[in-house]
Amino acid sequence: MKICFIVAMQAEAQPFIDRFGVSEAPGFFLPLPCKMYQTDIDGNKLYVVLNGQQQGSDLVGCEAASVATMAAIQQLHPDLVINSGTCGAFKKNGAAIGDVYISNGVMFHDRRVPGDDAWGTQSLGNYPIFDRAAEIANAIGFKMGKVTTGSSLDMQPCDLQIIEENHGELKDMEGAAVAFVCSLFKTPIMLIKSVTDLCDESAETFEIFKKNLAMASHAIADANEKVINYLLKKS
Amino acid sequence: MKICFIVAMQAEAQPFIDRFGVSEAPGFFLPLPCKMYQTDIDGNKLYVVLNGQQQGSDLVGCEAASVATMAAIQQLHPDLVINSGTCGAFKKNGAAIGDVYISNGVMFHDRRVPGDDAWGTQSLGNYPIFDRAAEIANAIGFKMGKVTTGSSLDMQPCDLQIIEENHGELKDMEGAAVAFVCSLFKTPIMLIKSVTDLCDESAETFEIFKKNLAMASHAIADANEKVINYLLKKS
Repeated sequence: MKICFIVAMQAEAQPFIDRFGVSEAPGFFLPLPCKMYQTDIDGNKLYVVLNGQQQGSDLVGCEAASVATMAAIQQLHPDLVINSGTCGAFKKNGAAIGDVYISNGVMFHDRRVPGDDAWGTQSLGNYPIFDRAAEIANAIGFKMGKVTTGSSLDMQPCDLQIIEENHGELKDMEGAAVAFVCSLFKTPIMLIKSVTDLCDESAETFEIFKKNLAMASHAIADANEKVINYLLKKS
Repeated sequence: MKICFIVAMQAEAQPFIDRFGVSEAPGFFLPLPCKMYQTDIDGNKLYVVLNGQQQGSDLVGCEAASVATMAAIQQLHPDLVINSGTCGAFKKNGAAIGDVYISNGVMFHDRRVPGDDAWGTQSLGNYPIFDRAAEIANAIGFKMGKVTTGSSLDMQPCDLQIIEENHGELKDMEGAAVAFVCSLFKTPIMLIKSVTDLCDESAETFEIFKKNLAMASHAIADANEKVINYLLKKS
């Protein structure tokens, strides 16, 4: 089995990279800035693909995620893509900082194209999720929730309205873009997200995100390890 | 010279496709839904790449534009990418419905990642533009303006604030994503936009967009022809 993790930021991926001792394949995606790490696990392939950098910081957001996912699928042909990273969540739904979720749905919350049904449907997205996601979440004991994706760290009233109308629980900046590209290539995708901030407790500032990033990234490394062990039937 | 036009919607591209008699290469980008049309002009190659469809409508927005641009650059190796399509503009800046502009800059207006300089800079984008854009606009007599891109047809107060702070004049839904991917591959890009609606005259409704789409798409076909003739030194 070939499993490919797509992660936006180096800091989000580093505890996971350290845990699995994956090694970098420098320049694998040139001329793209995406970074590739890999290792073998009992004859299976584990890949970790990061967006890489531009203009002095790790690339985040939906365009970079689209590019990294497309490059990863084209060059690595994974059986399963896992988008793993941090997210915001809602205290009113029972979320707490550091919680890990497996997604049971993924859509955009900041692509507003009203008009008629087809455009509205396409803009929200609602892409297919790996059909074993619920089985995995139940077996390991993770909560499940719907990921909604937008290109901004903050949450505007128009975003919250779409999130609430569509029962979104986990607010991230890449998931739906990764899932969109996977849908085009018909590559199965699941999303594993850990919570760095509570959207309904305080403004989603960069300071709160940075404060909780290391802890949430260690939580995601633990979660990723459990999912990999479950998928590969390791104890 | 290999010139590749990237256009979101079939309706935007059709007058241009008809004008140049380009022929479709069916399934060229499979499994991607993107569509490819091509013709030869005096030993030069003209390509027109469309996003294609998903979920019952032409794909629009930044993720589809990222995918189409990446596929086009990987498979066609163009010397120049031209993102051609419709946009909103501002009456207060002297714009009128049907006006054609060549862009002198391109950035995102809906990727809000405050925090520090590097993240903010990356999120706005501000990608390089083909170094002959001003020469072409001056020679043909087109206005120039800065394109700002967002994933929504409407314009929220937070969008307008970023547009005004950065002197944006032309509001579209793909330009910065096309330019971002071009920046990764170091492929020169220019943007040719025609105005379907005035953001400061009325709400940017789907009805106004649809009403003016055919006229603006014919204006863009005329403009594209002039730019091609200038680049290829045809009379």
